[in-house]
Amino acid sequence: MVDSLENNPPHQVVIIGGGFGGLYAAKALAKAKVNVTLIDKRNFHLFQPLLYQVATGTLSPADISSPLRSVLSKSKNTKVLLGEVNDIDPNAQQVLLGDQAIPYDTLIVATGAKHSYFGKDNWEDSAPGLKTVEDAIEMRRRIFSAFEAAEKETDPEKRRAWLTFVIVGGGPTGVELAGAIAELAYQTLKEDFRNIDTSEARVLLLEGLDRILPPFAPELSQQAEASLQQLGVTVQTKTLVTNIENDVVTLKQGDEVKEIAAKTVLWAAGVKASPMGQVLAESTGAECDRAGRVIVEPDLSIKGYPNIHVVGDLANFSHQNGKPLPGVAPVAMQEGEYVAKLIQQKLKGNTLPAFNYSDRGSLAMIGQNLAVVDLGFIKLKGFFAWLFWLVIHIYFLIEFDNKLVVMIQWVWNYVTRKRGARLITGQKSPLQVGNEAPSNYYKATPPREILNV
Amino acid sequence: MVDSLENNPPHQVVIIGGGFGGLYAAKALAKAKVNVTLIDKRNFHLFQPLLYQVATGTLSPADISSPLRSVLSKSKNTKVLLGEVNDIDPNAQQVLLGDQAIPYDTLIVATGAKHSYFGKDNWEDSAPGLKTVEDAIEMRRRIFSAFEAAEKETDPEKRRAWLTFVIVGGGPTGVELAGAIAELAYQTLKEDFRNIDTSEARVLLLEGLDRILPPFAPELSQQAEASLQQLGVTVQTKTLVTNIENDVVTLKQGDEVKEIAAKTVLWAAGVKASPMGQVLAESTGAECDRAGRVIVEPDLSIKGYPNIHVVGDLANFSHQNGKPLPGVAPVAMQEGEYVAKLIQQKLKGNTLPAFNYSDRGSLAMIGQNLAVVDLGFIKLKGFFAWLFWLVIHIYFLIEFDNKLVVMIQWVWNYVTRKRGARLITGQKSPLQVGNEAPSNYYKATPPREILNV
Repeated sequence: MVDSLENNPPHQVVIIGGGFGGLYAAKALAKAKVNVTLIDKRNFHLFQPLLYQVATGTLSPADISSPLRSVLSKSKNTKVLLGEVNDIDPNAQQVLLGDQAIPYDTLIVATGAKHSYFGKDNWEDSAPGLKTVEDAIEMRRRIFSAFEAAEKETDPEKRRAWLTFVIVGGGPTGVELAGAIAELAYQTLKEDFRNIDTSEARVLLLEGLDRILPPFAPELSQQAEASLQQLGVTVQTKTLVTNIENDVVTLKQGDEVKEIAAKTVLWAAGVKASPMGQVLAESTGAECDRAGRVIVEPDLSIKGYPNIHVVGDLANFSHQNGKPLPGVAPVAMQEGEYVAKLIQQKLKGNTLPAFNYSDRGSLAMIGQNLAVVDLGFIKLKGFFAWLFWLVIHIYFLIEFDNKLVVMIQWVWNYVTRKRGARLITGQKSPLQVGNEAPSNYYKATPPREILNV
Repeated sequence: MVDSLENNPPHQVVIIGGGFGGLYAAKALAKAKVNVTLIDKRNFHLFQPLLYQVATGTLSPADISSPLRSVLSKSKNTKVLLGEVNDIDPNAQQVLLGDQAIPYDTLIVATGAKHSYFGKDNWEDSAPGLKTVEDAIEMRRRIFSAFEAAEKETDPEKRRAWLTFVIVGGGPTGVELAGAIAELAYQTLKEDFRNIDTSEARVLLLEGLDRILPPFAPELSQQAEASLQQLGVTVQTKTLVTNIENDVVTLKQGDEVKEIAAKTVLWAAGVKASPMGQVLAESTGAECDRAGRVIVEPDLSIKGYPNIHVVGDLANFSHQNGKPLPGVAPVAMQEGEYVAKLIQQKLKGNTLPAFNYSDRGSLAMIGQNLAVVDLGFIKLKGFFAWLFWLVIHIYFLIEFDNKLVVMIQWVWNYVTRKRGARLITGQKSPLQVGNEAPSNYYKATPPREILNV
């Protein structure tokens, strides 16, 4: 820890959240003359952009996760605590972690977003989203279990429902999921079943707007749609989901209402702020947008509280006269690094100009060979886009062994068309026949003591 | 599937269980003129000998698992079904899978073993074992959470209990776990914490007999104990566990009774047969031993039912005048292959001599640099034993990408002393603070329809 140079204790920075925003802020403060405490509910940083590859059996969770302590172990001024912050006291300048109060001079809140079901929270059970490792494992379980169930199903109607996959949301996550599932059905699993022909599977991608990948240039949206269709995905735009219940998805296209029998529905359609947004609003009077994101000043602080910053998916930041920045990894990274720089400048009595996001472009993968990349001045598609996508993701993965393992898995998949991580796991026995209760530690038992520390 | 050569339908072999016994039997029948149906509760084959490396954060589950369909996809005569067999009807020659009846001409039962707590099943909650992927993930969660909890704990007594790890059972699994946890505490995690010094952790290995690794030659047991102590493990032999409750382990050494406060207790001490043993006993009158294993004839069949074979951990087989073979992977592999050969010989009107196990030796890893290998005529220890251990395990891993990924993880660990897979996962949020219920799909909900298909 940093020694006191004078009689002043060193500046304490507390960062809540070890995702792209929080972790990049912490890394940028590694050599600063401050003490940093990073708090996260999980002990690892998750590379969310590749989560869909865990969900579709290409990668394992550890391949895209880095233990926070490990990433920050060389930052001698940085402490990592595993915990969930209950409350923030902006007047006493403390965060409350269980019954521990952690004091701060500067607070960076970077707790991200969760899924939004547009008010229909009961859909969550039927249509899981993809934000955490457990989400990905559950999605993976459902996808692969569907083929297994179809293999055993004798009723053709039910089998068809098992082989129907509906992905709701045509942004990058939905597009990547749809492409990966189509490849599973039409390529990877083709030889693995005897009773079913997996190429009879239907993969539907539903998007409410008039094109998929709305943030991209229109010609790239078109290209992506064409590539998806080539892969076997049925893309339906201007399509709203009005109900998901009993394995039936109800859609509205214009005035037309349709029903699709689908046992596997996956949600990639909406996000809202993590609960910390509400905590901040209540304790500081900060204003939030409709998705619960905290509206921040040009320097990413909260109005009236210049020493509380919000970065990443939790923050609603707009350039002057601009739209709010999207909840993507590069935004969070740049915001985190900006705040770190700002803290160091302020300690020297300086300041910084307003945050300015440098938009380096957007990319989305469609299947294993194609991608679309929008760099503004350059638009790539097809094979070169795919190569670019791979390189960028490897570059930003943290930890060298992750880079190496992911590269190997991708080469392997490319060469063999197989996927190395298609396990059905996550329940004591995925087949809990009859009254067999899952083993104790999978029941909803009272939390382990660690939580009350 | 194999066509009928005459008017006789082809010989139907049904295999229950895709572990070493069942999978090796299926692979050996790949080119036989039979139809094979392999049924497993899981969709993958698990390389159990390396499960302790998942539990201690070196490997991911997918690195040591192979989807059964994938392994058998080239065996055109083989069908894989995901399901749990409820019952066996030896007279109608069928197995019952939910409400489906699967007929067989030859049945191979290879469902393995589960943990035994010597009657004290309530210990299972406090002291998880290591048989499945979920077991390993839970063990991993507890091990790494313990260090996290210690980091936040202000009470020195409680911190000491968080940093005390007790492993019950001095066989290969216990030895390997103890060595790996000691390395975590004294090497891997040393730089990662700020409030605690992980080298203050205590790792205790408790064994009831007079030496650890009882099946090995005595000098190797001694060597293993010396190596473990060098790693920092406290080995206590002739020590029986009499109670595990409220984070206190009660031991009995001779007449002395001791209590150890330990938040993390891991079970590697006893196994018993899977419930299928009971099902077989009831339906065929087969005799079982005290651990519930089915006693088999010299040709691994059940007395009175020459077309029902039991292989692997579920079987109790003795050479003439010998002790029952141990429940280890090479035994299961050889038994599976023997039965496959027997089936093919019988179809030609031949027979085979009694099964004879070819004991190629035993091996155990102690930490990352040392192992003991007992090959009978050769005994290896230290560095060469370790190399041998690595090569053997890589050799027997199924699927080339697993071999490659595991080799890379091991090289990485060796060079950096880090471990690439130390995630705390497995619950919706590992910190369920207050009344927050876990997300629906982690509650003990009724099984998904797949189970009733």
